[in-house]
Order: sequence, then structure tokens, then C-alpha cells
Amino acid sequence: MLWAPTGPAARRPLVLLGHGGSQHKTHPGIVDLASRFVGNHGFAAAAIDGPIHGARRAGALSGPAMQAEFLAMWKEDPRIDAMVADWQAAIAALLDLDAFDASAIGWYGISMGTAYGLPLAAADARINVALLGMWGADFANSERLAHDAPRVRCPVLFQQKWNDQLFTREGQFDLFDRLGSEEKWLKVYPGPHAPVAGEQLRDIEDFLARRLRSIAATSRVTV
Amino acid sequence: MLWAPTGPAARRPLVLLGHGGSQHKTHPGIVDLASRFVGNHGFAAAAIDGPIHGARRAGALSGPAMQAEFLAMWKEDPRIDAMVADWQAAIAALLDLDAFDASAIGWYGISMGTAYGLPLAAADARINVALLGMWGADFANSERLAHDAPRVRCPVLFQQKWNDQLFTREGQFDLFDRLGSEEKWLKVYPGPHAPVAGEQLRDIEDFLARRLRSIAATSRVTV
Repeated sequence: MLWAPTGPAARRPLVLLGHGGSQHKTHPGIVDLASRFVGNHGFAAAAIDGPIHGARRAGALSGPAMQAEFLAMWKEDPRIDAMVADWQAAIAALLDLDAFDASAIGWYGISMGTAYGLPLAAADARINVALLGMWGADFANSERLAHDAPRVRCPVLFQQKWNDQLFTREGQFDLFDRLGSEEKWLKVYPGPHAPVAGEQLRDIEDFLARRLRSIAATSRVTV
Repeated sequence: MLWAPTGPAARRPLVLLGHGGSQHKTHPGIVDLASRFVGNHGFAAAAIDGPIHGARRAGALSGPAMQAEFLAMWKEDPRIDAMVADWQAAIAALLDLDAFDASAIGWYGISMGTAYGLPLAAADARINVALLGMWGADFANSERLAHDAPRVRCPVLFQQKWNDQLFTREGQFDLFDRLGSEEKWLKVYPGPHAPVAGEQLRDIEDFLARRLRSIAATSRVTV
């Protein structure tokens, strides 16, 4: 899925949206974020389905049943390399459109969006800024995230829920601590794992928009 | 010290500025914040000296020597009740001027500004929103802060430095955890205890300005 403003072509900042477990590329929360980046900031946004989610499965499944199926899959085989490769193919296809500022690519992805987004940001320096969080280094099959975190070098805002029932406080602090980024911030919000709303939602839009605008302004000056 | 916009009288939001150890009520960092709230937002701001700081002492002393003198004083007698009483007298005197929105009073104070500001916010419900942080429940003579924290009920943004050399990560998490506020957020910034700059400084202005504007708008509607 690709969302972009209508009107004259321009090299716009691009936000990649990694949805959470049980969601999919056109989940209302993803469409809401895409609309904010396009409508409020003139950016483009793109999303692909996570493994066994959305159009990657035969029948539709959502909510707790889909989340349980994802967690069972994750614990058997997290499929990180395949998902990183899919995102890298998506980035290449998007940049081939010649419509985006290749120096202003942001990642949004918390929870499952971090499980795949952190290894992607570690592997692909085209990601210039990342909104991560709500996943811990001590979670099942997360050694790969702990290992990849020091290779993430772009600015990161890491979001954490203070009473997350899925991920421990310590595991999230640990994952944040391991990030190699010189500029990194951790923000804790009250409440359980879901929902993402209020100040947290505001920060997602505000952080990525401010950072991408600033990068885009710099790249226009120096190119 | 009182800073306020020139021009017609209005019931403005008021930000109380609690300076850090070794600083004083007209320290450049305090004047900078006051200027932001007055100049960028049309609020008023006020500051008084902390114990043994500024005009409360005979000779001027600043930097590490003043900080060491404060920490020695704190470990002998933290003087919390006296400082809370002074701030409450200051608030009463300020409200007597009939120039501020008494329902939109914010507190700024990190480090020593939290050592006194947290007990003040716990004791005085006139404080509607607070920016706290950079102090821990496990620091010397901080049982009083741990005890008072659950009585703080206003929205709080708690700031913490990831490599603070004075306060432990765990002690700061613990103090944040104890806050009684339904709306509370913790944000971690890279670096040591000082300086306060960049994203942290931006967040201080942004958080207090947004919250006070929102409270002031509501109080205008309902009064």
C-alpha cells in the first residue's frame, strides 16, 4: 500500500509503516497514521503485510486469535530474514518510482513492527529515523534483536507501556540500552500493551514528522 | 522573580520555575525558560531561590563548589518543609496579584527542582501539571520524596538521563513508578546529568505549554 498527496510530483519524505501483530497493511491504525503523514505533513507512506498477516493468508483473522497465531509462529520461527528482505524489496521498488527523498525515509513500527523493524533498520542504512518500542530483549526468540540493536545508528524514539502485560520493563530497557544510535530517547506511557492512543499517538506523528522535515530541509540545502 | 508579557492584563497561565542545585532564580537556564514561556506562549513565570542558593547566601558561589555545598546540606538536613512553605507563600502572593489563571499553574523543576517540587506538588493541588525528573527514590535523604510521590495527582512528565552519574536508573524508575498521577510519562535522554539541552529543553517547553494551554482553554469554557 502506498499513500501520497495528490498534486505536483515532489521528492517527499517517506514513512514505512510496520503494523503490529494481529493487524495488517490497511488496519485502521495504519491508515490513520498514513493519513496523518500525508494530510498533515505532505509526506508519503507505505505498508506491507507482516508474515501470515493480511493478504499473506487465505482467510481473514483478527484480534486475539490472530495475535495468538502470530505469537505461536514467532516462537517456532520468527522469519526475520524473510521479512527484512521483503521490506528491502519494497524500499527498492518505492525508490524506483523516483518520487521520494531517499535521504528522508522513516520507520514506524512498535510491537511486531519493532520485531521486524529493528533488524531492518540495523541492516539498511536507508532508514534515517525510527520509531520503535513495545518489544523486549528478554522475549522469546529475541536474541536476534538484542544482537542487531547496536547496528541501529539512526535517531530512535523507543516507546514503552508502563504496565505492558506482554513485555517486561527490564527487557525493554535492555533493548533500548543496546541501540547503537547516538540520538535515542525512551518514552514511557501509562497503561497496558494496547491501545496506542493519546500522547503516544501524538508523539509518533510529531517525532517522525519533525525529524523527517529536518532531514529533508538539510538534504535540499546540501544537494 | 516574576516574568510576564507587557500589554493588557489577562489571567495568564503561570509557570513556577524551580532551579537546579548550584543555580539560582536568575540563572541563565531559568531566564531562558521564563523567556520562552512569556515570549512564545504569553504565559507568566516566577522563580525563587532554593535553600542556601542565590540571594539566600552572603557571597556568590556557583558551579561544582556550590553543588557540593548543596549536596552536603541536603545530606545533613534537606529542608523540604521550609522550601515547600516558601513556595506556597510565593504562590499565595502571586495569586493575590489577580493576574493569573489560578487553574493553570505549572511546575518546572528537575534535579533539585524535583527534590522540592515533588513534595510541593504533593502538598498543593494548585499545581495542575508538573515537569519533574533527574532525582531518584534511592538517593540520600529521599524517603520523603518516595513517601510524597503517590500524593502527586496532576499530569507529570518525568525526565531522566540514561547515563546520569548522580542518580541511578532504578531509583528514578522507582520514583516515577510511585507517582499517583493517572497521566504520567517518563522520557529518557542520552547523556550525563548535565547539560539540559536539545530535545530535553524542547520537551520542557512543549509539554508545559501544551498542557497549560489546554487547561486554560477548558477553564475559560467552564467558568
